[in-house]
Amino acid sequence: MRLGFIGLGRMGAGMAANLLKAGHQVTVYNRSPDKAAALVEHGATVAKQVADACRGEAVITMLADDHAVESVVFGEHGIVAALPANAVHVSCSTISVALSRRLAQAHAAAGQRFVAAPVFGRPEAAAAAKLFVVAGGAFGVIEAVRPVLEAIGQRTFILSDQPDAANLVKLSGNFLIASVIESLGEAMALVGKRGVDLHAYLEMLTSTLFSAPVYRLYGGLIVDEAFEPAGFAAALGLKDIDLALAAGHELRVPLPLASLLRDRCLTLLAHGGGTLDWSAVGALAGRDANVPDRVDPTGS
Amino acid sequence: MRLGFIGLGRMGAGMAANLLKAGHQVTVYNRSPDKAAALVEHGATVAKQVADACRGEAVITMLADDHAVESVVFGEHGIVAALPANAVHVSCSTISVALSRRLAQAHAAAGQRFVAAPVFGRPEAAAAAKLFVVAGGAFGVIEAVRPVLEAIGQRTFILSDQPDAANLVKLSGNFLIASVIESLGEAMALVGKRGVDLHAYLEMLTSTLFSAPVYRLYGGLIVDEAFEPAGFAAALGLKDIDLALAAGHELRVPLPLASLLRDRCLTLLAHGGGTLDWSAVGALAGRDANVPDRVDPTGS
Amino acid sequence: MRLGFIGLGRMGAGMAANLLKAGHQVTVYNRSPDKAAALVEHGATVAKQVADACRGEAVITMLADDHAVESVVFGEHGIVAALPANAVHVSCSTISVALSRRLAQAHAAAGQRFVAAPVFGRPEAAAAAKLFVVAGGAFGVIEAVRPVLEAIGQRTFILSDQPDAANLVKLSGNFLIASVIESLGEAMALVGKRGVDLHAYLEMLTSTLFSAPVYRLYGGLIVDEAFEPAGFAAALGLKDIDLALAAGHELRVPLPLASLLRDRCLTLLAHGGGTLDWSAVGALAGRDANVPDRVDPTGS
Amino acid sequence: MRLGFIGLGRMGAGMAANLLKAGHQVTVYNRSPDKAAALVEHGATVAKQVADACRGEAVITMLADDHAVESVVFGEHGIVAALPANAVHVSCSTISVALSRRLAQAHAAAGQRFVAAPVFGRPEAAAAAKLFVVAGGAFGVIEAVRPVLEAIGQRTFILSDQPDAANLVKLSGNFLIASVIESLGEAMALVGKRGVDLHAYLEMLTSTLFSAPVYRLYGGLIVDEAFEPAGFAAALGLKDIDLALAAGHELRVPLPLASLLRDRCLTLLAHGGGTLDWSAVGALAGRDANVPDRVDPTGS
Repeated sequence: MRLGFIGLGRMGAGMAANLLKAGHQVTVYNRSPDKAAALVEHGATVAKQVADACRGEAVITMLADDHAVESVVFGEHGIVAALPANAVHVSCSTISVALSRRLAQAHAAAGQRFVAAPVFGRPEAAAAAKLFVVAGGAFGVIEAVRPVLEAIGQRTFILSDQPDAANLVKLSGNFLIASVIESLGEAMALVGKRGVDLHAYLEMLTSTLFSAPVYRLYGGLIVDEAFEPAGFAAALGLKDIDLALAAGHELRVPLPLASLLRDRCLTLLAHGGGTLDWSAVGALAGRDANVPDRVDPTGS
Repeated sequence: MRLGFIGLGRMGAGMAANLLKAGHQVTVYNRSPDKAAALVEHGATVAKQVADACRGEAVITMLADDHAVESVVFGEHGIVAALPANAVHVSCSTISVALSRRLAQAHAAAGQRFVAAPVFGRPEAAAAAKLFVVAGGAFGVIEAVRPVLEAIGQRTFILSDQPDAANLVKLSGNFLIASVIESLGEAMALVGKRGVDLHAYLEMLTSTLFSAPVYRLYGGLIVDEAFEPAGFAAALGLKDIDLALAAGHELRVPLPLASLLRDRCLTLLAHGGGTLDWSAVGALAGRDANVPDRVDPTGS
Repeated sequence: MRLGFIGLGRMGAGMAANLLKAGHQVTVYNRSPDKAAALVEHGATVAKQVADACRGEAVITMLADDHAVESVVFGEHGIVAALPANAVHVSCSTISVALSRRLAQAHAAAGQRFVAAPVFGRPEAAAAAKLFVVAGGAFGVIEAVRPVLEAIGQRTFILSDQPDAANLVKLSGNFLIASVIESLGEAMALVGKRGVDLHAYLEMLTSTLFSAPVYRLYGGLIVDEAFEPAGFAAALGLKDIDLALAAGHELRVPLPLASLLRDRCLTLLAHGGGTLDWSAVGALAGRDANVPDRVDPTGS
Repeated sequence: MRLGFIGLGRMGAGMAANLLKAGHQVTVYNRSPDKAAALVEHGATVAKQVADACRGEAVITMLADDHAVESVVFGEHGIVAALPANAVHVSCSTISVALSRRLAQAHAAAGQRFVAAPVFGRPEAAAAAKLFVVAGGAFGVIEAVRPVLEAIGQRTFILSDQPDAANLVKLSGNFLIASVIESLGEAMALVGKRGVDLHAYLEMLTSTLFSAPVYRLYGGLIVDEAFEPAGFAAALGLKDIDLALAAGHELRVPLPLASLLRDRCLTLLAHGGGTLDWSAVGALAGRDANVPDRVDPTGS
């Protein structure tokens, strides 16, 4: 397919590379152009402006937040203005459900098509085409871009014909991850203060009932207090919890555990911990409990 | 080994049977004696009173709660009074850390030995000798009863030389399970109110980051609203959360997520839901959110 | 003084009337013009458009929310465009701190002056000139409009030279009121379920340590389950809790009690209770506890 | 009346003195006898043992906790054994509802009568006979000891004919006080981090909607960070919150705000703050928010 790809951060660079590997013609755009250079060797064309990445059958966006997406989609030189009729915008970013709805409406009004396809996975998974893709949109539109989704991920889940529902599912997934962090943080404060060896404890958990990647990954970060450098920064984690809470607010769904997570993230940020990995949330129970010999992520 | 086994409920019956299968001589005791009859065919001897199950190298107890354990351990005809010097009491019940310490002290004072060996797994796992055993106690004592532990479980984790630390680990594990229930309950209220199909949603979660037994089992119960009959009743779930909170209190470890879980369980019990499976906690977020077409476990 | 007054709702009508009684020349504006008619008898001039209320030394705004304020302040025919240099905008509405800052900047850029003067009190207090005014702004500016503040309230508190700090104080006050509602709701669920007479209980509280208007007013509403008609609707209460949380978010101040209140309000709104008085939050603890013979504000 | 008085701590000493002033014959008992000496000058007789204080028409107990009450009531030389038939035990201590029920039953079985009469007020109020008394018991029994209640307090509230309901009301009152502390703590963290002067802020609150003693007292302690010496220690505050939660547990009443308060108290105690005044709970929101220039009560 003839594609555009906008957003060559740690996630997007790998995704675009995989689209090239899969044989697609890809025109890439990034605000800071040096990131695009590396992809030229793999066959990418570099767009000088957003509109130049909007000449094909679909354009994929993978950007940091609502603001970044808005800045490339709307306005005189944005995607909505440039994309041909019937072409598809595949939005892979983790954004608010409200913005997802705005995107769907704007593209519909312009005679274009829209799919939300947020992804689960960290940069290594993006590079290895091992992402999980959660797609939302009209059946025919998702089918039209299925080669794109298959090139970037190991599996695509179609959960709704409403694009914003896919974004909601992605946000709920990040909420579930953060819940794991908090629950492990409390459990480890409890057994750790009693002197249980935390490596052995985590090994026990992940060998039995909690044998999921999310427990291994985040449990390991908490046990090792490996909060720097961040795989996913607490400030971004807070943003996603905020978006989940905002969606809950709009739908009238109280989420007390999400409220707790928001307060935990704010505590981190209040002490300058926004750049720590969000697994540092899992150290706050230990801080409140004054567990000896553990790192206080709010401390100086 | 010559063993006694006290407590032939849904868990204990399977465990005792597996000890017999492994070739041990087992004298069994249960308050209501009919449960013992079934084991006689497999070679068990039936004890008429607790003391009769305390003549061997070790006695294993698998009982419902602190009260049940106290009633067989202490007193004129209890285990402490009857057990020979150097024999081992292997306590597999989920009990408070405070009682575990009392047991350790009482046995030490009587020249006996004590191991806490609480288990993870439901009755089917007990029957299949697939339990996970969390053992706490002096190294030599655990070694002495290793044949017992290996006969009842698929793997033994030694996490501390302090018996009560093993009980704490068990309680923390149940807290982690309940945390999964609450987090899934909130996530499903959120996406469910937006119209996402919950079966597909759970399939997505458990195929990706949350591919652990605990998500499959409890997620399935919540999606299907299969709260009766209870695999593990909410009233027992509350008891374990209470014990985790009590341990946290004693250690000065605040556990805000456990506090939330306690309040959720109390809400269930206030409406007569104590006999529901504790996964019904996962329906309370949906109740507060007024998600259409979902069961309200507090409703009539 | 020559004044304009914009916003003649239940609060604003009384405030404007008191400005007239105090001898000021007042030009009034309201989106629906019939509300202005009643004030003409008391000497008010009616403005046909916002700008016509901006010809004097100061213009006072008393509107429902951020959106209403933005709609009269900004734009071609708004206050910023119409107000003379050095004239003062006195903003009495309960608005976000972010909007308050935007107002301060916009007026400064236009050579105008700005005071935030949110008020505590219900419509009867507004009619009786018994409001409490929380003023924020430069000393000289507050002095310049002191006759206005004295005409509408019984006392003015100057808490900061920053207008948005006054708005924050107002939001914090509403948070404190809601905290009283929640705490009384929990206490009454507890003693009420034990059979204590709640009227006698409230009489005891308000005769002793809790002898403040807020306990009498909201305690009475909860005891009597007098949630309709609303003195202050739950939907507006949620808005104010949201604004307090938003301010806390910006300042990095976790507010767990405010988070609980937000979830309580959302539960009410999820069940169509947005038009109930926000004291209905105080009935939710009783709902969760299944207290007999009490109104469930989420019930049909 | 001929009375006994047991427990001459900071509260009891003042209460016993006021009974003497009112003309009653009072035999006093205290575990450490020196406290009794001061009352002899005012006409008290000193009992050498508990039973010697149980010879009159009524015996009043004012002790620190459940354990202290149990130790003087039960046993061979306790109140139940010594008190004459029909004589009344007036229990003024803040104790659990469970113990209150046990006391009622034990006295009934012994042909004695029982009134629970917990009090609100600090030592100065006890000395000045300005306590508020919350009485629970059969009408005739309360009437029989009314001269006692009138001598120690400024007003008696009869809230139930069930003694333990009076204890529950007392616990709920302490919960309400702690709720004020938490809500003020969060509000002050919020406005304080924005630079609002906290003395002026508290003056505003207590001059308007929050003009109750509890806001003045605890607000002042929080603003001034006057956590030592403790008027009421955090460890005791935790005990009372625990008792309120235990009563809620038994009655199946979830109390999320009380759960938050429990976690706050535990955080204090985890850092050695159990001897601080419980108003230090009101500094924890500021700690989490990292408000500059404020005391962290968990810090070294």
